[in-house]
Amino acid sequence: MDHVRERLRCRRLGYLGPEGTFTGEAMRYFLKGFYEEEVPYPTVEETIMAAQQGEVERALVPIENSIEGSVNATLDTLAFDAELYIQAELVRPVRHVLMARPGIRLEEVEAVASHPHAAAQCRASLARLLPGVPRLAANSTSEAALLAARSGGGTAALGSRLSAELYGLEVLADDLEDHPGNRTRFAMVGREKMPPSGNDKTSMVCFIHANQPGALLQILQEFAYRYIDLTKIESRPTKAILGEYCFFIDCIGHESEEAVAAALRCLRCKLRQVKMLGSYPRFVEEGEA
Amino acid sequence: MDHVRERLRCRRLGYLGPEGTFTGEAMRYFLKGFYEEEVPYPTVEETIMAAQQGEVERALVPIENSIEGSVNATLDTLAFDAELYIQAELVRPVRHVLMARPGIRLEEVEAVASHPHAAAQCRASLARLLPGVPRLAANSTSEAALLAARSGGGTAALGSRLSAELYGLEVLADDLEDHPGNRTRFAMVGREKMPPSGNDKTSMVCFIHANQPGALLQILQEFAYRYIDLTKIESRPTKAILGEYCFFIDCIGHESEEAVAAALRCLRCKLRQVKMLGSYPRFVEEGEA
Repeated sequence: MDHVRERLRCRRLGYLGPEGTFTGEAMRYFLKGFYEEEVPYPTVEETIMAAQQGEVERALVPIENSIEGSVNATLDTLAFDAELYIQAELVRPVRHVLMARPGIRLEEVEAVASHPHAAAQCRASLARLLPGVPRLAANSTSEAALLAARSGGGTAALGSRLSAELYGLEVLADDLEDHPGNRTRFAMVGREKMPPSGNDKTSMVCFIHANQPGALLQILQEFAYRYIDLTKIESRPTKAILGEYCFFIDCIGHESEEAVAAALRCLRCKLRQVKMLGSYPRFVEEGEA
Repeated sequence: MDHVRERLRCRRLGYLGPEGTFTGEAMRYFLKGFYEEEVPYPTVEETIMAAQQGEVERALVPIENSIEGSVNATLDTLAFDAELYIQAELVRPVRHVLMARPGIRLEEVEAVASHPHAAAQCRASLARLLPGVPRLAANSTSEAALLAARSGGGTAALGSRLSAELYGLEVLADDLEDHPGNRTRFAMVGREKMPPSGNDKTSMVCFIHANQPGALLQILQEFAYRYIDLTKIESRPTKAILGEYCFFIDCIGHESEEAVAAALRCLRCKLRQVKMLGSYPRFVEEGEA
């Protein structure tokens, strides 16, 4: 991980804010000390486009299974609006904590503030811990923590452990998500391509013509024929033409490796467009590598 | 569409609530008069499981590109928790309106309430119409309308046209979404399979073993070989085993049709499990059929 962090070193790093979101937590957890300034943006689109326009050197956004940002926003902005590359992937478990002002006990909680999706992910736990206690909506888990901090004390918040620290709140209960094992995958995006690290992944978007039956099969054959493993495939409608699809594909290997390069060349011959989203080091759990 | 509606007739119909959500709007738009009682549930999981447990006969949930509910929640609940079939698909454009108490003009709006994702989808429009006006979070677009209705008048809400009607609000501006052409696809789920309608789609989940390289290619060959068109494919991690994937696949045709039935038989021989999510009539735009 350290050589990756070193390569990602930058001055201004954008992320999906506000301060204390799960994206912000992942950023500090993995990259603290490798950037000088963190710049929060209110939406996934704005975070990515800030890197595109050079306001920040890189940007960190959730790309799979997120709370605050929608995955589709990330995929669509990278595919249709930005000309950027994924430079790293980071994976973190989603752990919701219940927090309140210091000294407040669980029995004293009168309301729970959170982003609606975070609240939905902790529904069973909340029903058990705080039956009948009303829920207040917030625009982010971080705004929820702010609401709790500013309240007389009776409002608790659901969010990241980082937001509890930021707003001086005490954690009343931990690991509240109903489905443990939930993880969020984040993508670091920027303007330069990453060199091979020896253990890489490549992401791309394949655009096919509206009436090209069997196109997906042809795409996959290029990988299978070269023994390239796919780790993700997802069809999505293109924004432009109704009935026209594109495929988001992740495969193992770097685009400079012989097999991947050959597959890409053949895909470019067959398809309307293949947009590279980048080759980047595969995420390896700490302790695993 | 009418023969489909007739088949879907039921007494109690569950949907992702509360009253006035986009799901509720789609339900009334397509099915009014074909059910006796509508029963709102707070989350996608609870809506689907209500049909599973027989509290309602059928349930309507968003399955693609939704505001209130996350798509993953729908896919995962159908794949892992419920034993239900998709009985129909419904597609509606997402149209956000800005609403406030009657008589309130745009210049008098002091705050805009909405679900954070709805607000994010209308960010540019809101910045143009109401620059600098603060945003209040709500747990649903419908709760936002309620906040506007209960306010002194200075709070506007962003949500469905139905919620404006339900809460006696006036529409100040229409079609606020930054990307027009946004649509949500809804799935009606229930316990019985649907008979062929002559123009059907089939949804399934293919579970593969963790180490089965080329499995996806093998899956797709079964369809390609029989000239069966795929309309969606999406890989998702299974909940149980890290590194194990499953594929959500939609194809054209009914499972009782020769080609689809043969493809399913062959898939069952090859794969760990093929879970049917149902064969159902393809959605046809009004006026198209």
